Amino acid sequence: MKKIEVGILGATGMVGQRFVSLLENHPWFDLAWIAASDRSAGKKYAEACNWRLRTPMPERVAAMTVHECRPAAHSPQLLFASLDSKVAGEVEREFAQAGHVVVSNSSNYRMEADVPLLIPEVNPGHLALVRRQRKERGWKGMIVTNPNCTTVGLVMSLAPLEVTFGLEKVLMTSMQAVSGAGYPGVPTLDIMGNVIPHIANEEEKVERETHKLLGKLIDGRVQPATCVVSAHCNRVPVEDGHTETVSVSLKKKASLADLINAWRQFRSVPQERALPSAPAHPIVVREEKDRPQVRLDVETEHGMAAVVGRLRPCPVLQFKYVALSHNTIRGAAGAALLNAELMKVEGYLD
Amino acid sequence: MKKIEVGILGATGMVGQRFVSLLENHPWFDLAWIAASDRSAGKKYAEACNWRLRTPMPERVAAMTVHECRPAAHSPQLLFASLDSKVAGEVEREFAQAGHVVVSNSSNYRMEADVPLLIPEVNPGHLALVRRQRKERGWKGMIVTNPNCTTVGLVMSLAPLEVTFGLEKVLMTSMQAVSGAGYPGVPTLDIMGNVIPHIANEEEKVERETHKLLGKLIDGRVQPATCVVSAHCNRVPVEDGHTETVSVSLKKKASLADLINAWRQFRSVPQERALPSAPAHPIVVREEKDRPQVRLDVETEHGMAAVVGRLRPCPVLQFKYVALSHNTIRGAAGAALLNAELMKVEGYLD
Amino acid sequence: MKKIEVGILGATGMVGQRFVSLLENHPWFDLAWIAASDRSAGKKYAEACNWRLRTPMPERVAAMTVHECRPAAHSPQLLFASLDSKVAGEVEREFAQAGHVVVSNSSNYRMEADVPLLIPEVNPGHLALVRRQRKERGWKGMIVTNPNCTTVGLVMSLAPLEVTFGLEKVLMTSMQAVSGAGYPGVPTLDIMGNVIPHIANEEEKVERETHKLLGKLIDGRVQPATCVVSAHCNRVPVEDGHTETVSVSLKKKASLADLINAWRQFRSVPQERALPSAPAHPIVVREEKDRPQVRLDVETEHGMAAVVGRLRPCPVLQFKYVALSHNTIRGAAGAALLNAELMKVEGYLD
Amino acid sequence: MKKIEVGILGATGMVGQRFVSLLENHPWFDLAWIAASDRSAGKKYAEACNWRLRTPMPERVAAMTVHECRPAAHSPQLLFASLDSKVAGEVEREFAQAGHVVVSNSSNYRMEADVPLLIPEVNPGHLALVRRQRKERGWKGMIVTNPNCTTVGLVMSLAPLEVTFGLEKVLMTSMQAVSGAGYPGVPTLDIMGNVIPHIANEEEKVERETHKLLGKLIDGRVQPATCVVSAHCNRVPVEDGHTETVSVSLKKKASLADLINAWRQFRSVPQERALPSAPAHPIVVREEKDRPQVRLDVETEHGMAAVVGRLRPCPVLQFKYVALSHNTIRGAAGAALLNAELMKVEGYLD
Repeated sequence: MKKIEVGILGATGMVGQRFVSLLENHPWFDLAWIAASDRSAGKKYAEACNWRLRTPMPERVAAMTVHECRPAAHSPQLLFASLDSKVAGEVEREFAQAGHVVVSNSSNYRMEADVPLLIPEVNPGHLALVRRQRKERGWKGMIVTNPNCTTVGLVMSLAPLEVTFGLEKVLMTSMQAVSGAGYPGVPTLDIMGNVIPHIANEEEKVERETHKLLGKLIDGRVQPATCVVSAHCNRVPVEDGHTETVSVSLKKKASLADLINAWRQFRSVPQERALPSAPAHPIVVREEKDRPQVRLDVETEHGMAAVVGRLRPCPVLQFKYVALSHNTIRGAAGAALLNAELMKVEGYLD
Repeated sequence: MKKIEVGILGATGMVGQRFVSLLENHPWFDLAWIAASDRSAGKKYAEACNWRLRTPMPERVAAMTVHECRPAAHSPQLLFASLDSKVAGEVEREFAQAGHVVVSNSSNYRMEADVPLLIPEVNPGHLALVRRQRKERGWKGMIVTNPNCTTVGLVMSLAPLEVTFGLEKVLMTSMQAVSGAGYPGVPTLDIMGNVIPHIANEEEKVERETHKLLGKLIDGRVQPATCVVSAHCNRVPVEDGHTETVSVSLKKKASLADLINAWRQFRSVPQERALPSAPAHPIVVREEKDRPQVRLDVETEHGMAAVVGRLRPCPVLQFKYVALSHNTIRGAAGAALLNAELMKVEGYLD
Repeated sequence: MKKIEVGILGATGMVGQRFVSLLENHPWFDLAWIAASDRSAGKKYAEACNWRLRTPMPERVAAMTVHECRPAAHSPQLLFASLDSKVAGEVEREFAQAGHVVVSNSSNYRMEADVPLLIPEVNPGHLALVRRQRKERGWKGMIVTNPNCTTVGLVMSLAPLEVTFGLEKVLMTSMQAVSGAGYPGVPTLDIMGNVIPHIANEEEKVERETHKLLGKLIDGRVQPATCVVSAHCNRVPVEDGHTETVSVSLKKKASLADLINAWRQFRSVPQERALPSAPAHPIVVREEKDRPQVRLDVETEHGMAAVVGRLRPCPVLQFKYVALSHNTIRGAAGAALLNAELMKVEGYLD
Repeated sequence: MKKIEVGILGATGMVGQRFVSLLENHPWFDLAWIAASDRSAGKKYAEACNWRLRTPMPERVAAMTVHECRPAAHSPQLLFASLDSKVAGEVEREFAQAGHVVVSNSSNYRMEADVPLLIPEVNPGHLALVRRQRKERGWKGMIVTNPNCTTVGLVMSLAPLEVTFGLEKVLMTSMQAVSGAGYPGVPTLDIMGNVIPHIANEEEKVERETHKLLGKLIDGRVQPATCVVSAHCNRVPVEDGHTETVSVSLKKKASLADLINAWRQFRSVPQERALPSAPAHPIVVREEKDRPQVRLDVETEHGMAAVVGRLRPCPVLQFKYVALSHNTIRGAAGAALLNAELMKVEGYLD
């Protein structure tokens, strides 16, 4: 099989760097084109990018020229986008109009009624929304999105509970890594030895994205899930990995063992179709009393799993537990990559 | 007024060091005697103690000899205790039997029916329990306790809500400082850049201590409060200061402004009697969107206030907010000191 | 004595905040006017300033209006300046021309032959350079500077050695706090769990400023000291406080005890004249084997001392030791304040 | 080729865990036996070991039983040792007497005249000392050692300079990671936001081990190198990776380019014999102005290279630069592994 050429919009940022890293040696996709802000355009990637990952910048990409974020003759059909939301709205639309498939990590289009907001293990069927999107908007291309980095781990852990027992209430407190704020992002003087109990718009995103992700596609429209969701979002001095404490109440009676089973048995389309970036176990349950921990568990399944632990009764709701996921892999670049892989096997890239 | 001589049991630990520091220049109490484990006994304090506070060790105390934790001819009547809970049970009992007033920061006796578990602003009346304690146990002395460092900030923020509106449900997630685990405490390799989502027995302590603290003293017995409480406890890389996200539902209807008012107007016996360690404002409300923060707010009112902020509606319960308190001052040594000051003005030290 | 009205140029930055904090309750100076960049001008200080100190913003200053950095009818004669070096050159000159006394923390004029670069304990006589400055430049006012934050601690520890034994060679490695880079300054993703072995222009500043500070004023000119100086500068994950390892060789023979004595007996004009910001002991010698440490010693003498320790023979040069100083107090705002206090008692503010 | 069975003495500690990790899938060695303190003996490794590495504990090893540190019928001939130096002296001797080849990371025997202290790229010939060792001590086995974690990076960067130009003087300041102190090791309250300017015995080890490592083997004895070495050792809040600033003077005249060449061309026996753990480039030179950095460079060559950068003239000595190496890989477990691989190809394991 010939590899599909792909590009990145916003290739120099933290998520852009993850895209570059995850696309190296990808079995289906071949990184052929990179674009970033006008400040970077025209430079070599090695010059334009302040590389912050612990693995070295791939040499082939280092030598590539950074383009402007405008559709061009040679821009590949499939584009991964990790642009600042200030510009993402316009740039992504322009590319979609021009016939590109934009697999976006930005928040701008996530809640649009005709734009799929996807976690391939949770709501792969929502991908069908793009038909309506192209028809109604008259676009030759399309936009597909993945959720906010804080929403992903939460919703992965909730999905099997919603399906098996029905969710009633969800109360979540996040302890989020600094890489989620990009680069330069959080000043050291703000977060060193500190907790910042506020992240702009984050709680709102988590609450409404959860409803859409767990919703059902009926007659071409997503009926949002009916559970009530409340989020407290905090920044903590951690590099990569969002930890979340979660309390839930369910519609059906269930035991602790029932929930564990639901998590352990959870498999979905990415596993069935063996998508290259799919984790073998989308939810990994740790049994130790003090896990999951960022330091020890964030790389589980190459950063693509939600790791859960400490399931126990909650005196206020019914159950409580801890969830962890990698915010720039499963919560951003890896999420978009898996979306594109799903689109490939579902025929959306033909 | 002649100062009252006091001593410290467990003077070399983290909380013991706070006692030493807070007792320097105390207007009522004079530190005359210090005791610690057998390993330290016989040494000068300067030698025995690995001083970890940022203010220097008081020179007078540095030269004092550390005694064994056994009642002696010269041990003062009033003793502040911050012993490891493995030994606190027996040592504190021995001193109380021998006629000492033990103002303890350890967990051993907190939940005993005849032992006051006190926050002077919240339940000063519970102090009366010591009459029953002395009578039933036949002790010449007594034991009085303060709550766990995580409970204090939570219950201070809850108390005016309980009194004014009645509490129904409380769901709390803590992000706790490492100093709460003592010294050497948490290994760097465990917590650097990490979140540890478990602290042994902490959630149980928070849940049951909250009930006792908010309970009413009826016929010499504490009737526990009826609200339901659920705690998620986490360790984060912070030195001093526990941050807590809190969701609550109330019995009476209330507006956001009503809660703010209840917090702002909260005053109690320590303020009325002008106890030396009492904060002028036991609850300080911050209006900025991203406060309270450990780095900026933990020293509020010399570390004796609970600082709250971010009050907003909670979709699952009714309200949500953030609370912060200093875990080794308001949550430990300062708490015990305020207890002793209350006992003084209430005549329990005569 | 009526207090002298003073102003701050660059009042919203990290050093500007230190000026505000140190000027609160100053016995001689009264903060009457604050200025900052055009972005802040016109706003209240509380609005314009992202306050990062652990002590609260003084209420009186919070309500003051921020002015533009231009001489005005009401701008006080004495101005403390902590401007970005990109603009400091022009702004400071403009104020000096207009008759203001600019006590500057910026690097722009430090090495000018007619501008005093001062550590009041080390080279108070260099202040006389301003006469030449005013004459040659035709300014009604003047500019006086303090050294780079990394130079201060080093030179304070070197000064008594130079005077008593003569310095031959100095080799220094710094481990510098992030607050030295201002705010927002160092991104968390750059420094968390890391060492950055480079700070732009820092090594050059340390090497040349040391020569000027230890130089002698002869015929109105500073003859630079002749010792050879080499600096390695590093950034480490510390908030406030630069730690430096120092190796030296001396011209005269000396014992370890001789050096300790020279440090302990070091007193100078600020101590003799009892300047309000002067440390009682400009150099504090710690005898423990593992001190000075930022965490325990940076606040020594209210952050105005150089703390030294671990003096021992150096196999390559002759002696080696560790020095610590507070980079935004002794290394910036406190340094400028002490300069102004020296100028006051020497009659330069009349 | 049949794999050689090996064991680990001290398998549960930080370096022991690195041995376990590096031996997984090793092409020549097969981990067949693990031993640790009496407290761990008899337990499964999974139970006995508080695993702290980011990669998961190998399942096969998790199920292995931990033995006592005593020679037994089934203890393999080749043993990697990472014991606390309090017990290492006796335990290693006992195993060597009993015929085992002990490849040790402990300091006890490093400076013994008949014990090889090895960096395979630097002084592979010193291995011959074991003949004298076995003869004089009458041991059937032998002990071979690697240097202290701080010495390794320094000496690797010095070796080509010594060979090509002759070293005269070396002055080094280290900024060392906490993992070097083992587990639990450094308490968080000691190092968070701090620099500790002292590590017990570390400076002495660096100074004397450097002389032995750079020495020449003449008539069965190591003639120590004649260069003068001075070390300042510090602990900083870094997880893995020691950063060192180094100043040197040389016997022969050399340019900056000459030093770069000497480093870049440096190859030795491990590269020539293609030892499995040998880095392709033992010294990697970074040209950026702010490298090497722990965060970005510590994993270079799988943690087996010394990474150098910032070479520039030193006003006091002749040249200065920065060196970085991974303290628990190149500085401990990886060093011992490479020693064993060298012994294998040199016929010492037959």
